[in-house]
Amino acid sequence: MKAQQTTKPTKGEMTAQRIMDAAEKLFARQGYQATTLRDIAEDAGLREPGIYNHFANKEALYAAVLERSLRPMEQRIARLLEAPITPAEALALPGEILRLNAEHPQMPALFYQAIQAFHEGSPAGNAAEWMLRLFAQGRALNRQVMPGDDDSVVLQGIAIFNLCCGYFLAQPLLRELAGIDALSDDALEKQQRLMERVMRAFLIG
Amino acid sequence: MKAQQTTKPTKGEMTAQRIMDAAEKLFARQGYQATTLRDIAEDAGLREPGIYNHFANKEALYAAVLERSLRPMEQRIARLLEAPITPAEALALPGEILRLNAEHPQMPALFYQAIQAFHEGSPAGNAAEWMLRLFAQGRALNRQVMPGDDDSVVLQGIAIFNLCCGYFLAQPLLRELAGIDALSDDALEKQQRLMERVMRAFLIG
Repeated sequence: MKAQQTTKPTKGEMTAQRIMDAAEKLFARQGYQATTLRDIAEDAGLREPGIYNHFANKEALYAAVLERSLRPMEQRIARLLEAPITPAEALALPGEILRLNAEHPQMPALFYQAIQAFHEGSPAGNAAEWMLRLFAQGRALNRQVMPGDDDSVVLQGIAIFNLCCGYFLAQPLLRELAGIDALSDDALEKQQRLMERVMRAFLIG
Repeated sequence: MKAQQTTKPTKGEMTAQRIMDAAEKLFARQGYQATTLRDIAEDAGLREPGIYNHFANKEALYAAVLERSLRPMEQRIARLLEAPITPAEALALPGEILRLNAEHPQMPALFYQAIQAFHEGSPAGNAAEWMLRLFAQGRALNRQVMPGDDDSVVLQGIAIFNLCCGYFLAQPLLRELAGIDALSDDALEKQQRLMERVMRAFLIG
């Protein structure tokens, strides 16, 4: 479950990853509430009790799914916050976030669900806390490089978030309109350049 | 139900609008499948049979909800397609789409639901057809003004769509992070300028 696994994962770790993959997909497709541990077990190819060897309950599994995709982003931004950010780093960051997201392309649907469910308390609260923490980090970073008032910095941060997450939500549209596989390296590269261009416009103000 | 009603709406028309408002909200929040005509009637403050005076069934109501919010956009873009588009018109269009969307701020959730349900057939098919028709129009327009290959034009069109729709989906986040009411004129004005800036970056290439 480490971001960069150098040793071969154990069978148990591989099963845990498979459970998280299934959970990520089903939570995104059906919503957290409507998804049962039984659905997830079935999708992951095991029986429901098998899940409890890895996760205490549905809430713990949800927390692990969030952690797996969001911790690497948090760590990346935290590293950038250790010193004043350079324009080159600021320009590259949206594309880096896109690439991290591409490893878990179902997550954006979960992020928007969590935003709609703000204030509904745990376990959506868990996701809401993640969102707010990441946005606070991003805002601290963007303030260093974006001109304009605080509202503009917030709106521009949300715009970058929407460009990134919307790209993954629009996957069927990209396929339908232009035969583009959004997860192909070629398409990700183009979207990365697009986001860099938008970020450049935001830095100029 | 006309986009620009000059005469006073009848009581029947007002009831139909109220039913569509309730349907829009509940479809967006719960999804089309999970929403019953009984839920919608209750939210609109009438009994279920009352809906049938205005809409034949749930599918017809869904079609009317889509029509109400998307027809004005389609007409606006169709007018622009009648003559070569000027750069000023191209720059202003994303903001105009934002303003039209602001009259039905629940719709973006429905658009993304429809995109996920592409190929699942009617009634999501109805929404999918709308999406594809609007994107085809937008693409014809963007081709006139955006440099770059066709994939870039498609990706940039989707980026504008995501900036617009994501803005409304992120409403709770805007409130939480900066106390911004996304539907206030001030915030819409700022988002409009942001989208114009992005569009300018896309026109330069």
